[in-house]
Amino acid sequence: MHTQRFYTLSASCPDQVGIIARVTGFIAEHQGWILESSFHADAIDGRYFIRIEVKADSLPFSLEEFRQRFNPIATDLRMNWRINDSAVKKRVVIMVSKQEHCLYDLLARWQAQELNIDIACVISNHDTFKGFVEWHGIPFHHVPVTPDNKSAAYAEVHRLFEAAQGDTMVLARYMQILSPELCAAYAGRIINIHHSFLPSFVGAKPYHQAYTRGVKLIGATCHYVTEALDQGPNIEQDVIRIDHSDSVEDMVRYGKDIEKTVLARGLRYHLEDRVLVHGNKTVVFR
Amino acid sequence: MHTQRFYTLSASCPDQVGIIARVTGFIAEHQGWILESSFHADAIDGRYFIRIEVKADSLPFSLEEFRQRFNPIATDLRMNWRINDSAVKKRVVIMVSKQEHCLYDLLARWQAQELNIDIACVISNHDTFKGFVEWHGIPFHHVPVTPDNKSAAYAEVHRLFEAAQGDTMVLARYMQILSPELCAAYAGRIINIHHSFLPSFVGAKPYHQAYTRGVKLIGATCHYVTEALDQGPNIEQDVIRIDHSDSVEDMVRYGKDIEKTVLARGLRYHLEDRVLVHGNKTVVFR
Amino acid sequence: MHTQRFYTLSASCPDQVGIIARVTGFIAEHQGWILESSFHADAIDGRYFIRIEVKADSLPFSLEEFRQRFNPIATDLRMNWRINDSAVKKRVVIMVSKQEHCLYDLLARWQAQELNIDIACVISNHDTFKGFVEWHGIPFHHVPVTPDNKSAAYAEVHRLFEAAQGDTMVLARYMQILSPELCAAYAGRIINIHHSFLPSFVGAKPYHQAYTRGVKLIGATCHYVTEALDQGPNIEQDVIRIDHSDSVEDMVRYGKDIEKTVLARGLRYHLEDRVLVHGNKTVVFR
Amino acid sequence: MHTQRFYTLSASCPDQVGIIARVTGFIAEHQGWILESSFHADAIDGRYFIRIEVKADSLPFSLEEFRQRFNPIATDLRMNWRINDSAVKKRVVIMVSKQEHCLYDLLARWQAQELNIDIACVISNHDTFKGFVEWHGIPFHHVPVTPDNKSAAYAEVHRLFEAAQGDTMVLARYMQILSPELCAAYAGRIINIHHSFLPSFVGAKPYHQAYTRGVKLIGATCHYVTEALDQGPNIEQDVIRIDHSDSVEDMVRYGKDIEKTVLARGLRYHLEDRVLVHGNKTVVFR
Repeated sequence: MHTQRFYTLSASCPDQVGIIARVTGFIAEHQGWILESSFHADAIDGRYFIRIEVKADSLPFSLEEFRQRFNPIATDLRMNWRINDSAVKKRVVIMVSKQEHCLYDLLARWQAQELNIDIACVISNHDTFKGFVEWHGIPFHHVPVTPDNKSAAYAEVHRLFEAAQGDTMVLARYMQILSPELCAAYAGRIINIHHSFLPSFVGAKPYHQAYTRGVKLIGATCHYVTEALDQGPNIEQDVIRIDHSDSVEDMVRYGKDIEKTVLARGLRYHLEDRVLVHGNKTVVFR
Repeated sequence: MHTQRFYTLSASCPDQVGIIARVTGFIAEHQGWILESSFHADAIDGRYFIRIEVKADSLPFSLEEFRQRFNPIATDLRMNWRINDSAVKKRVVIMVSKQEHCLYDLLARWQAQELNIDIACVISNHDTFKGFVEWHGIPFHHVPVTPDNKSAAYAEVHRLFEAAQGDTMVLARYMQILSPELCAAYAGRIINIHHSFLPSFVGAKPYHQAYTRGVKLIGATCHYVTEALDQGPNIEQDVIRIDHSDSVEDMVRYGKDIEKTVLARGLRYHLEDRVLVHGNKTVVFR
Repeated sequence: MHTQRFYTLSASCPDQVGIIARVTGFIAEHQGWILESSFHADAIDGRYFIRIEVKADSLPFSLEEFRQRFNPIATDLRMNWRINDSAVKKRVVIMVSKQEHCLYDLLARWQAQELNIDIACVISNHDTFKGFVEWHGIPFHHVPVTPDNKSAAYAEVHRLFEAAQGDTMVLARYMQILSPELCAAYAGRIINIHHSFLPSFVGAKPYHQAYTRGVKLIGATCHYVTEALDQGPNIEQDVIRIDHSDSVEDMVRYGKDIEKTVLARGLRYHLEDRVLVHGNKTVVFR
Repeated sequence: MHTQRFYTLSASCPDQVGIIARVTGFIAEHQGWILESSFHADAIDGRYFIRIEVKADSLPFSLEEFRQRFNPIATDLRMNWRINDSAVKKRVVIMVSKQEHCLYDLLARWQAQELNIDIACVISNHDTFKGFVEWHGIPFHHVPVTPDNKSAAYAEVHRLFEAAQGDTMVLARYMQILSPELCAAYAGRIINIHHSFLPSFVGAKPYHQAYTRGVKLIGATCHYVTEALDQGPNIEQDVIRIDHSDSVEDMVRYGKDIEKTVLARGLRYHLEDRVLVHGNKTVVFR
């Protein structure tokens, strides 16, 4: 990530002649200095994907004015688009349960300013990490989830996310299935880490499933949450080698290292607007 | 692999106190020099797995006498066991279709004596590689397979394998589903390379399935063939990273590199008696 | 790689405002359809790198006319640039010694048309693979190299490369150090595979060096050849895990799988104009 | 790691006929139940390496008596050996500077009881993590190191390690070069994580060196500390892919993920007596 302030334009539109020329022509016309740019044509669907970082102080106008001036071009190209300011930190809400590894990992990155975020709050169905989170000066909310109170519990999560002005919700091994309402309300903004290399081993106890099946590698998948369990668009995946000598407990231990790394990478791609959702797939401009 | 001649004992039996002591005690009693040894206890099933390489000329008797003398111990320990002589090359029958990568790869390894095998013959449902195989001095048999002649075709494959005194059959991207008779006749002796990271993407066109699902890594699986398609015990697996810019054709190309490497590794483990089948899983003593 | 005919423009120039806009503006002005495009700004050196694939039949003029019309823009931007036609196969000359793995691998890819090349000829200091190469219909030249005849031998290699109208020379484990004259004559056109993860283990017997040093991974490096041994710009590298049980001979065997894969990837990047040399480094637009 | 209490015997000795038989014979004679066992013969040096886990309550005597009874065998075989009790937690002293990633990672693993250790204390040349460490209930010692006070500072570190009854010292990106006295006093007990794939890029600023050299992968190395900077026996290494678009700062960020994982793996191998030093190399029984 660049240290100077920049704007990130990300967009997709039907493919046609001259898209790059029009978009970068607009930027050049206003002396915009492009720091990084990525383009992708999906030849099968005829759709075009764009991500451009422009140095903020190279432009003679504000982000708001950029939006207004660029709008006719975007409309003409039938774009879905957004532009974000690196000076505006995104507000992340972390959901955890009783496992520590993703939480410690995310707080370490936040502490080191590796991720350009505010952690708005941490929400958990257990109070295991209350002290740890609050020691970091981050609000902690304990929202127990039982078979009987799910509806009320997720309404409370919804309320807390809104109250915290959250941009992105991260399920850092949250171990609960969110309500369809939450999934719908924040489509493309809830990120989960699943402890298998999807589509293998959907649902509960994937390491047990992997052990039983006798696979030689285990993995983890960072994906957007949709109503369909573990079926949302993949953002990032990785694997690690195991062998016959590894018990389920060993797999769980090895898996943690993959889970936290894959989650952190996927989250960073999302926060830096590197992920463009395309149906049930993603374009990730690393 | 060691350059001097050696015997490889591989065995499994119910776990109990003193197994290693009895087996290695027998070897030591006869001044057997152990080159390499591996042991594994499956704590859940209470089963024990052994692989030992003994220098041939350190023992005062032949392999046949070893078998006789060791038999009472093996019987007492209720072992499944075998012992092989590195001086006796295994006879491999390669099955191919129209894709070249695994065939070229295996012949290169054979040519360099990296694999301690005789290639008894190559059988194919196409004659694409007849000249190439025969140039290497290896018999080539063209056995066309059509929807109508499957029964006769696989009977012919069976006959050719027997006539060639084959030990191991390798499906080097053969692209046909063997008959249940063949699978049963050579259980634990037929090795396939499947072009996905199983259990994801069973069956036909796995790269298309992977493309549609939007995975971030693709893989290959080397496994023993059983009647259940792509369900046999895994021997070796590996993956390679792809991204949104890769078409199905790109995946096919990347995949070839994984397929041939995974097949060669799995085959070598099998030929060196490093693979012990355990239900639908394998112990692989690398 | 795309199946329809396309032109590949690759270029570098000092960074400034508006480079993409000018280049893609020129293409759009003539209704050029961009299949793939990549850009990179080296912030430290202030240099900009470009690679664009344009569908050939979307343009109203020939490649020659493209060159003439684009020239003023390139001159104005102080570009180093080239544009190639996917319909013109590059002519590759392969140099081998007595190891088979890279040669078999490259011929398999060529046979499958995975690489869009003509293999102009194979040159070797041994005649080991004469029959194998000629069976494929490819000319083979045996040019022995001894301590006494190096000058004459490399003059002969030079002559054969010219006579074969070679574009790229591939040292596929050639095991000889080319003369400074050859290195200079074909700067940026000679590709070597070195059997270590450079800069570790320069020069002879890198697997022995790796064994002695006790590393836990071994690797291979594909790089452009320069006069400085194993110091040229890296194109591609990869590694594989080993452990204490692996002898030097095991490392050699494992290493082969990495060497051939890394060489094939690096060569493909080069042939598809994906590699832009930048001092002693490379930009590789995968 | 097994959940029941066990003893771990690790040993090396000159290779000869019958080593395994004698060692496992002794264990079997006393009804010892072997949970896990690994053996390695270094054919070049003629040295034999052993690691055996025996279930504690399967033996009819204490660890002390094991030591006495086994001693004659060990003496006869000219063994270097040790046996440890899984019920006795090792005491680890962590040395840090101002980087957070390895510290957070180790404390997360300790918190989850993934590592079977007591963290005796944390020592740092900065007080950055004083609050964080103390919040976990772990003593923190601030020992500033300046060009002028090195001798006194390392004497203080030495004193604190002794006072804390430390078994193992972990340099978790400590960024200071320990005194020769400390290296000598705790040979084979000080573990460092170096942020390069050694032997490439010894010493300061390895990511800058990697950037300048244009490598395509960066790595990390966990090794025992000796007087020779970054030259001690390697325990574990790993790498991650980068490309031309990654700045030194990006490499530092990617590198952290490798560093903490490699350190944690290497440390676990050490703590579980899986590492046997052999000259300047290691046997690691994973």
